[in-house]
Amino acid sequence: MPRYESPDRVVIALGGNALGDTPAEQIKRVREAAPTLLKVIEMGNEIIITHGNGPQVGMIQNAFAAAHESNPKIPSMDLPECGAMSQGYIGYHLQQAIGVAMHKAYKRWHVATVVTQIEVDPDDPSFENPTKPIGPFMSREQAEVAQAENPGWTIVEDSGRGFRRVVASPDPKKIVEAPSILNLLDNEFIVIACGGGGVPVVRDYSDKGTYKGVAAVIDKDMAGELLAEDCSADMLVLLTAVDHVAINWGKPNQEDLTDITAEQAREYADSGQFGKGSMEPKVRAAIKFVESRPGRTCIIGSLEKAAEAIAGLSGTRIHL
Amino acid sequence: MPRYESPDRVVIALGGNALGDTPAEQIKRVREAAPTLLKVIEMGNEIIITHGNGPQVGMIQNAFAAAHESNPKIPSMDLPECGAMSQGYIGYHLQQAIGVAMHKAYKRWHVATVVTQIEVDPDDPSFENPTKPIGPFMSREQAEVAQAENPGWTIVEDSGRGFRRVVASPDPKKIVEAPSILNLLDNEFIVIACGGGGVPVVRDYSDKGTYKGVAAVIDKDMAGELLAEDCSADMLVLLTAVDHVAINWGKPNQEDLTDITAEQAREYADSGQFGKGSMEPKVRAAIKFVESRPGRTCIIGSLEKAAEAIAGLSGTRIHL
Repeated sequence: MPRYESPDRVVIALGGNALGDTPAEQIKRVREAAPTLLKVIEMGNEIIITHGNGPQVGMIQNAFAAAHESNPKIPSMDLPECGAMSQGYIGYHLQQAIGVAMHKAYKRWHVATVVTQIEVDPDDPSFENPTKPIGPFMSREQAEVAQAENPGWTIVEDSGRGFRRVVASPDPKKIVEAPSILNLLDNEFIVIACGGGGVPVVRDYSDKGTYKGVAAVIDKDMAGELLAEDCSADMLVLLTAVDHVAINWGKPNQEDLTDITAEQAREYADSGQFGKGSMEPKVRAAIKFVESRPGRTCIIGSLEKAAEAIAGLSGTRIHL
Repeated sequence: MPRYESPDRVVIALGGNALGDTPAEQIKRVREAAPTLLKVIEMGNEIIITHGNGPQVGMIQNAFAAAHESNPKIPSMDLPECGAMSQGYIGYHLQQAIGVAMHKAYKRWHVATVVTQIEVDPDDPSFENPTKPIGPFMSREQAEVAQAENPGWTIVEDSGRGFRRVVASPDPKKIVEAPSILNLLDNEFIVIACGGGGVPVVRDYSDKGTYKGVAAVIDKDMAGELLAEDCSADMLVLLTAVDHVAINWGKPNQEDLTDITAEQAREYADSGQFGKGSMEPKVRAAIKFVESRPGRTCIIGSLEKAAEAIAGLSGTRIHL
């Protein structure tokens, strides 16, 4: 079994929904998750952790929007900055929780959260057709004020629930801080990176091609996939609320998948078996990773059973 | 001049006030500051950057307090989490701005922001007598509600301007993420760390001595001093709004100091020459660093003239 002679590198992506809605819930959830993450290391793997931030960045945005409305002295806060805040906030809880678990297990490993920017293509087609809703719901009047204040925003009506800003969800192109992440990883640190899909940046060709933030949301599973490629990882683990990917989901003939090829996964995805905003992006990220180099495996499973899933006892294993 | 044969390590502490009050101001200010930071590297130094977060963490706290009041579904956010958010927010802008400056100077160095916790002593005397005001001003009624919701808070009347929560300002004891910072530094990364004085944590002896966040504010210059000791830095540079430390400040006989010993600095500080909440903590941090090991220098000066100050052409140089 030569693959276990040197540690495998495993990128683990935690869903933002698994982190709870308040700081108290979040610290509780990450403390519950940390021993599982440690178990993955004890199985002989190096781990890199990434995480979603949907509910958290939404909370930060809504807080600033509400505060700015009640007190214009509090500045409004755009998406890249809110995303960077969520990286600090979630990373702090994660590294503290992993530290607690290590302390109790008499381990002296180290954890670092790296604030991460990810370059996206300003010509990504998603910028022409932004669909990702962000920030609070607005009345028609609020939407008109917001549109006047922010001419660059796209605001759409959300079927009966009011108006909302939508932004693009471009593909990740390049992890700006990849060298920092790799350096820590090569020195056996546990790294937390690319939180919330990374802070999206584009090259600003009006300023010599330097980076600037852009209001967009990078899918955190696609960012995790790129992170796994950049780290030469052997395995990508996408953790979600369910133990397995299923076909015919919610129907009498629902079937949990345990082991499928990338080709089978693509067929299921193309035939619309998976939820557009939930399971399908995970399956697409899995296919991309598995096909990027021979020998790569992706596992989709639940946070609670992450260690079992990596050992082949739970989850859906996707391979060439 | 053997000290220039290998790079000097320089810890540079930027004041939170220098970063402006809004995201637009902040990105502008850090973009203006970045070429100066690069110049310090080009002079043959390794740099570690730390920064204050007073206005920024205040903004985040006020936003969450206002939002929670207008919509109780938005959770209130305590100080450690707000501090972690400010590290992500400021670190993102700093690393982007330094990246921009490097790009324009054809440099291919790397910058990383490390989310940092700093351990403080739960028996630090400052916890008995919290004095650092944080969060928004409150009316008497709001203060009573806040006190009832948060029995552990200390709320005091702020001479005529309303009521405010105060927290302790304990001494920093240990930088939890020091190994990550040192590892990046040893591999020639530019590191941004200990933002806002670090997220203060205490050992929780009810949970096997593991870390948990505590509502407190660590003075960012004292945190920078500890960072400089931990990194075996040769120089600590505390940047502020003025070019020099002065005695008899604001009087006709004001005298700008250019070169003083730690002993002189202590005499001036003990005789009340420096502002309690502004220059005195800087001078105390300078004395501590200079006396920690022979050959260490601290410079207090302005951000604009940081490179000149390091070269001995501006600022106040404090040495043994």
